[in-house]
Amino acid sequence: MNLRIGILGATGLVGRATLAILEQRGFPCDAPRLLASDRAAGRTLAFRGQSVAVEPTTASSFDGLAIVLLAVQNPLALAWAPVARAAGAVVVDLSSAHRDLDDVPLVVPEINGDRVRPGVTLIANPNCSTAAFVLALAPLARAARLTRVAVTTLQSVSGAGAAALDELERGVRMGLDGTPPARAGGLPPFAWNVVPAIGSFEPNGYTREEMKMVRETRKILDLPELPVTATATRVPVRVGHCVAVNARFDRPLGPDEARASWRAFPGLMLVDDPAADRYPTALAAAGGDPVLVGRARADLTDPHGLEFFVASDNLRKGAALNAVQIAERVAALMAASQPVVARP
Amino acid sequence: MNLRIGILGATGLVGRATLAILEQRGFPCDAPRLLASDRAAGRTLAFRGQSVAVEPTTASSFDGLAIVLLAVQNPLALAWAPVARAAGAVVVDLSSAHRDLDDVPLVVPEINGDRVRPGVTLIANPNCSTAAFVLALAPLARAARLTRVAVTTLQSVSGAGAAALDELERGVRMGLDGTPPARAGGLPPFAWNVVPAIGSFEPNGYTREEMKMVRETRKILDLPELPVTATATRVPVRVGHCVAVNARFDRPLGPDEARASWRAFPGLMLVDDPAADRYPTALAAAGGDPVLVGRARADLTDPHGLEFFVASDNLRKGAALNAVQIAERVAALMAASQPVVARP
Repeated sequence: MNLRIGILGATGLVGRATLAILEQRGFPCDAPRLLASDRAAGRTLAFRGQSVAVEPTTASSFDGLAIVLLAVQNPLALAWAPVARAAGAVVVDLSSAHRDLDDVPLVVPEINGDRVRPGVTLIANPNCSTAAFVLALAPLARAARLTRVAVTTLQSVSGAGAAALDELERGVRMGLDGTPPARAGGLPPFAWNVVPAIGSFEPNGYTREEMKMVRETRKILDLPELPVTATATRVPVRVGHCVAVNARFDRPLGPDEARASWRAFPGLMLVDDPAADRYPTALAAAGGDPVLVGRARADLTDPHGLEFFVASDNLRKGAALNAVQIAERVAALMAASQPVVARP
Repeated sequence: MNLRIGILGATGLVGRATLAILEQRGFPCDAPRLLASDRAAGRTLAFRGQSVAVEPTTASSFDGLAIVLLAVQNPLALAWAPVARAAGAVVVDLSSAHRDLDDVPLVVPEINGDRVRPGVTLIANPNCSTAAFVLALAPLARAARLTRVAVTTLQSVSGAGAAALDELERGVRMGLDGTPPARAGGLPPFAWNVVPAIGSFEPNGYTREEMKMVRETRKILDLPELPVTATATRVPVRVGHCVAVNARFDRPLGPDEARASWRAFPGLMLVDDPAADRYPTALAAAGGDPVLVGRARADLTDPHGLEFFVASDNLRKGAALNAVQIAERVAALMAASQPVVARP
């Protein structure tokens, strides 16, 4: 049974990655309906050797679709999710618009894929950095009680979208023989720079990006009281988010135990052999599905603490791959609920 | 009274920065003796409009010098420091070779400049990241008892020397339309990447760079038992080291108190106005003397914790500027000890 599915925001970085991953993973669907703004409509994208036209999004765009992936910013996700649900589709929202709602599961399939259940028609996909480091935290949190998480992220510019990535390329070129120009609005350039500010600031001095990590880590791990703190920075890398993680437990959980837990958990690749100069890097993660984890070592300040480092492709596990994995669970539920038709 | 001083390693990134800063600050010296390897000897460098020849380093190179700045790697610093001291010079060592020795003061002048005393003939200059974040920690550690420090650094490639910086430039250019090449030895490229490994690894899983931060923070702050942990990473930036700092105290020390402490402390520039998009960045710090500090906010996991972000020019406060500031203290002691000669 091939499902009819749709991608809203199909021409963006994440939309295109989603289409590619649907193809790579042999998702049980016909060519997806590709939806975008009027401006992008008329373009075509390739899927299984076919050229698929991008359509403008209208009130009837979702009719007949079983699953819709929303790869757009919050306002558009808020506007179109009810329309798609009303049309009968199950919605996987890659924006942050619905992540904090109690009745919307926030899913990393390897951790809490069981939240994708019959009758659930809206599922949120987590923040791109959070999806990666929470995957490395999950097996540890099953082995011991997690009591505190502190992270510093080093995030690539693709996380800010295609326009920011173009701006990075231009800035890097201009910065080869001069000074990279400021971004729009006089903001400091991403090129040749470190910018410790992602998203707007909240009254407590944290950015929206940092607070997403706090709230989403708690929700995905189902630890609503877990103390989490975060610093999020942008670095001049195209693809690949890195996170330095400091985690504390109710007992010593050393690097050997951590490595054994990571080896046994799906979606992770252990890259942790300092003697051979093996550790996660942004470039090593880019283009791949696994979340790379390494640099495990005891926190020097706390016998119950562990330090480690995570790198992942923010367009894949941080966004499109995770969303397609969620859609695969939805598709499996739909296949299981199909009435068995007796052959004539 | 003009002193005779020398710079060993004069043609390196830090050596040249040291020469420039001596000139900018009007250091009371004649043209410094510029010492380097045989390979670099014969070149000339500019000082106060003069062209100064770079000399090869020999056993008699230090004769007649009052102060010698060592801007070389550890083996050369270990080899030449005794020769320079035996020739009667006070040595300021920018390498890490002598930093851990009990009888060698490790000095950031704004914090512990009083360790530069008559009779002290060898003074160590701290690690480039440590010098910056310890300057921001110092006024807080005077206001409350510091009980834990955890840092993640985002360090520029100039910290790895001129050859690494050339390699970064080449890698960034090659990476504009392809993949940046591996570094020598098959190590992951710095260009377009995040590399969580600076220096060799120690048996505890930490790198030498990380352990320098631990030991040097304790020594400079004169808190030998202070719990410190660190993750050090390299990012594709030319100049400007950034550090995300998480500090804990024996009482709540909030962002307002921290900002007031930083405003009153020399060498720091407070850049902390999120509403106006003002926070420290690598590019904003590069080329300047002050250590930029901002993003102060309460640690979300601990009422006694504070998070903040530091950026500094690693060639200046992290190296050459701090060393020249030490040399200025030495020069002041020498001037004060000069016998007053009665005019004829």
